[in-house]
Amino acid sequence: MVTAFTAAETTAMATALKAALNGPRGANPLVGAVIVDPQGRELVTGFHRGAGTAHAEVDAIAQAAAAGIDLSGCTMLVTLEPCNHLGRTGPCARAIIDAGITDVVYAVDDPHDPAAGGAATLRQAGVRVRAGLGAGEALDLNRQWFEAVAAKRPFVTLHIAQTLDSRIAAEDGTSQWISCPESLADNHAVRGRIDAILVGTQTVLVDNPRLTARDAAGNPATKQPVRAVMGLRDIPADAAVHGSDGLVLHLPTRDPREALSSLYGSGMRHLMVEGGSRILSAFLAAGLVDELIVYLAPTLLGSGTPALTGLGITTLADAQQWEWDASDGGAVRTLGRDLRLHLRPQRTVALDPQPSRATAEQAQGGY
Amino acid sequence: MVTAFTAAETTAMATALKAALNGPRGANPLVGAVIVDPQGRELVTGFHRGAGTAHAEVDAIAQAAAAGIDLSGCTMLVTLEPCNHLGRTGPCARAIIDAGITDVVYAVDDPHDPAAGGAATLRQAGVRVRAGLGAGEALDLNRQWFEAVAAKRPFVTLHIAQTLDSRIAAEDGTSQWISCPESLADNHAVRGRIDAILVGTQTVLVDNPRLTARDAAGNPATKQPVRAVMGLRDIPADAAVHGSDGLVLHLPTRDPREALSSLYGSGMRHLMVEGGSRILSAFLAAGLVDELIVYLAPTLLGSGTPALTGLGITTLADAQQWEWDASDGGAVRTLGRDLRLHLRPQRTVALDPQPSRATAEQAQGGY
Repeated sequence: MVTAFTAAETTAMATALKAALNGPRGANPLVGAVIVDPQGRELVTGFHRGAGTAHAEVDAIAQAAAAGIDLSGCTMLVTLEPCNHLGRTGPCARAIIDAGITDVVYAVDDPHDPAAGGAATLRQAGVRVRAGLGAGEALDLNRQWFEAVAAKRPFVTLHIAQTLDSRIAAEDGTSQWISCPESLADNHAVRGRIDAILVGTQTVLVDNPRLTARDAAGNPATKQPVRAVMGLRDIPADAAVHGSDGLVLHLPTRDPREALSSLYGSGMRHLMVEGGSRILSAFLAAGLVDELIVYLAPTLLGSGTPALTGLGITTLADAQQWEWDASDGGAVRTLGRDLRLHLRPQRTVALDPQPSRATAEQAQGGY
Repeated sequence: MVTAFTAAETTAMATALKAALNGPRGANPLVGAVIVDPQGRELVTGFHRGAGTAHAEVDAIAQAAAAGIDLSGCTMLVTLEPCNHLGRTGPCARAIIDAGITDVVYAVDDPHDPAAGGAATLRQAGVRVRAGLGAGEALDLNRQWFEAVAAKRPFVTLHIAQTLDSRIAAEDGTSQWISCPESLADNHAVRGRIDAILVGTQTVLVDNPRLTARDAAGNPATKQPVRAVMGLRDIPADAAVHGSDGLVLHLPTRDPREALSSLYGSGMRHLMVEGGSRILSAFLAAGLVDELIVYLAPTLLGSGTPALTGLGITTLADAQQWEWDASDGGAVRTLGRDLRLHLRPQRTVALDPQPSRATAEQAQGGY
């Protein structure tokens, strides 16, 4: 059977894919949804703002309701199969049926078991469901998330706060603060939306961080991440990371996979790895980083602790290739005097780092 | 005597200061010029595009001529005293007089001996000349250039082509190409507008670069920089840097000041230091860098040659503070897959890197 899509549907799916990028990466995928009327005109555009908030479909339907738009006979285009589960936000399939939407076009299936079945539920209710439009783009959009789900591990965000010359501490160990206040505030905002934050025992021993999410005045955020400490050494009894809320885990391992498995088993779906160098490097070397956030300060140290301590790479052709991630506010943002760089692993693992002109230059005998 | 400026003149000087930022830094200062009519309306805005091109005043006058605008009785606002010398572009004072401009307001005096006297020439011709409007901003605009002129040394641009983790070569020495073709092309464009390019003998021995300015097809640019090699070791007779045009200098020293003094004596007014690590670090440690261009590739190596090898800094409070430089196309530009970062030394040498909120956070017991 050939599934046909109209030009208007193709255009609307492109809008949905673009809207999805407004959301943050993490435990949930980026999703966008557009509702078009029977004439193919785009009525509302929704997107998912991250775990615990309305799904894109519900966001779009709520916008229509707020604007007094009747969705009877309309078509919804959504980048991921609508969910069928009773999670924190209620099933999208039900919301779509209740809104009177008669057609749903989605790009790719939801890979989760608990969420699966949305398409079936819609069909049983008489909704016409088609899939596959924009599938390539939708798969790429959430490439790392699909990988994490399939591997049954948390989605991993890596955090680096560094100087221009990639130092995270000076020779004497001082590191507070390489980043500007606006970067620190952004880091605390990210802490407030993840499930767990991870550092090594070395970081606990040297920096004694609290690892809580706090606002500019130092007040704790409502939602706090679990504080995970990885490594074989004991955590001192008086370490600040213990806090008083019991949200602390010691993972007695040096293996990132073991740490992720343990955290996944504890229900953690989005982890932020904050440091230090050895932990950051171990996750990168293992290919277990889905998203990279770098706060780049316009400062130079020239020496001190490098952000990374080795990835097992000896030659340039094997360098890890990353690509700029436009989601969540953009790939490059100015935060106070710092730059916030946002990247994700490049699609193709083994890319040729020498495009044609560079190769030509090389052939000509050096730079 | 109190020099009075009208509101229109103040506004026009702000326009001139902003326009100046369109130019590139180097042997010549950034300069902007605005011509207003007797009613204070801005007619044309000029700026200086770098050594060998029209000065801002002549640029503005030429625009007016092209547009058929009569400048009789008009006022010119310019961020630097108009020159009086017969350089590559002819004296601005003469062009202003010839255009019938009756009033000139400039921000700061030209510090050069050969150029001095523009104001006097204008006054002798009956032009009303006032100075000092926007002087603070104009001095800051070309802070490094004034410093280089006063020190009788070339203006120094430092070039770093690095990975996200600030590596300029992998463990096995491979470094071609960390940067993308667009960054390489930009680097060659910069080479084409400077007087001299400097590397260390180590770089010549390891990378054997040609250090010429070439276009994308590999053809040499019309204007080539002098190729200077600094260090005590001999340059191999068959090194590519020798070329065939005689534009090569060996500076047998490890002292950046000596190298600059020698280059200045040879007439060089704009130097770009390209590497390697030790040379870059020596110039930075000596506080002899006026402009920093960093090509940042979205790649990670984890090990290899760091961009910098030590600046004599042991604690974060002594870190070198830089600020984003909006001139010459902006502080942060996307070049292919790379970012091009453009910075200059921060105004105040000993800044407190811990703003109030960060200090408060620290007082609360760590991050």
